[in-house]
Amino acid sequence: MNQNVYPEPIQKLMNFFKKLPGIGEKNAERMALAAIELPSEELENLATTAKDIKSQLKNCSVCGHLTTEDICPICADSHRDHNIICVVEDVKSVFKFENVGNYTGVYHVLHGLISPIDNIGPENINLASLVKRVESLKNPELILALKSTVEGETTTLYIKKIFEKKKITISRLSYGIPMGAEIDYLDIITLDKALEDRKRISEE
Amino acid sequence: MNQNVYPEPIQKLMNFFKKLPGIGEKNAERMALAAIELPSEELENLATTAKDIKSQLKNCSVCGHLTTEDICPICADSHRDHNIICVVEDVKSVFKFENVGNYTGVYHVLHGLISPIDNIGPENINLASLVKRVESLKNPELILALKSTVEGETTTLYIKKIFEKKKITISRLSYGIPMGAEIDYLDIITLDKALEDRKRISEE
Repeated sequence: MNQNVYPEPIQKLMNFFKKLPGIGEKNAERMALAAIELPSEELENLATTAKDIKSQLKNCSVCGHLTTEDICPICADSHRDHNIICVVEDVKSVFKFENVGNYTGVYHVLHGLISPIDNIGPENINLASLVKRVESLKNPELILALKSTVEGETTTLYIKKIFEKKKITISRLSYGIPMGAEIDYLDIITLDKALEDRKRISEE
Repeated sequence: MNQNVYPEPIQKLMNFFKKLPGIGEKNAERMALAAIELPSEELENLATTAKDIKSQLKNCSVCGHLTTEDICPICADSHRDHNIICVVEDVKSVFKFENVGNYTGVYHVLHGLISPIDNIGPENINLASLVKRVESLKNPELILALKSTVEGETTTLYIKKIFEKKKITISRLSYGIPMGAEIDYLDIITLDKALEDRKRISEE
């Protein structure tokens, strides 16, 4: 790749885009050239947003979610059920559940999963605050919404164990066939789980 | 999609990204979350770049290429051959040739192609300045590097016609089989062109 192919401000914009996931040289060029065609106002807004974004955002002191306040709008919402805590790996999961929009409980963001192979133990994720939080509630219920990898299942088991002696309802998301998927294209582990977790539909 | 799922600065950053080509909701979220993990310095640099980029960039007064100067570094480079002008549709083509790095002539950016169906005539693209430019040169040569669509070929023919009575070498890029392509997967028009434009390799 030649040096100085792009005018300096274009190159700078491209350099920024290339630091983002999934953006290569070609895409960065396309995005930079599209960006300079936008109205000046859009670029001024971007400048203002980019300048302050790091200092504006922090983690919610209750659940660890990303927010501009001390306590996030979800934890501050009195219409939500604060006894039901959905435990998630990262803020992306919160955005996902909120985009779906049917969940009315609150969240707890672990900011990671237990992974001995990567030297990530229970003390390295946002777990201690979950224990404290659960202890402060009268009738807590935990929904563990972690992915079905070794790390996800290790973390699920660990959390289950912490609260073993307390009378707390703990559930995990169901495993099974994704909606609309063709059965003969499913991987064997998913199919095996779907069989194991089968749900009775006849009356008991 | 729910309102207020994302903290405001994240939403603003996502809104900007979504205005760029090929970036949807999910990608914008992923990019915004990656952006806030970058060092503050990167975001401050982005802010500075975004703020001034529109006012810093203009078109080269000679060739029409994007530049921060009145005359672009390519036109200002005395080591390049200013008699050989590669005529291209847009600045992306210039970046492409410069990235390849073997071309030592200069460019002329048309900023469009003749397209009667879209009401784009010769007067709507950067052609008049090409005529003037060619007239000012002693021994000009034009390389028409336009795409092989109806618009590209119309523009190529039109330019050929303008300079018909002047003694000017005009060539176009060759059509043919892309390097590495399987012949049985080629479209018939490309194959037909490759046959028509075949190149003698035995000695004459």
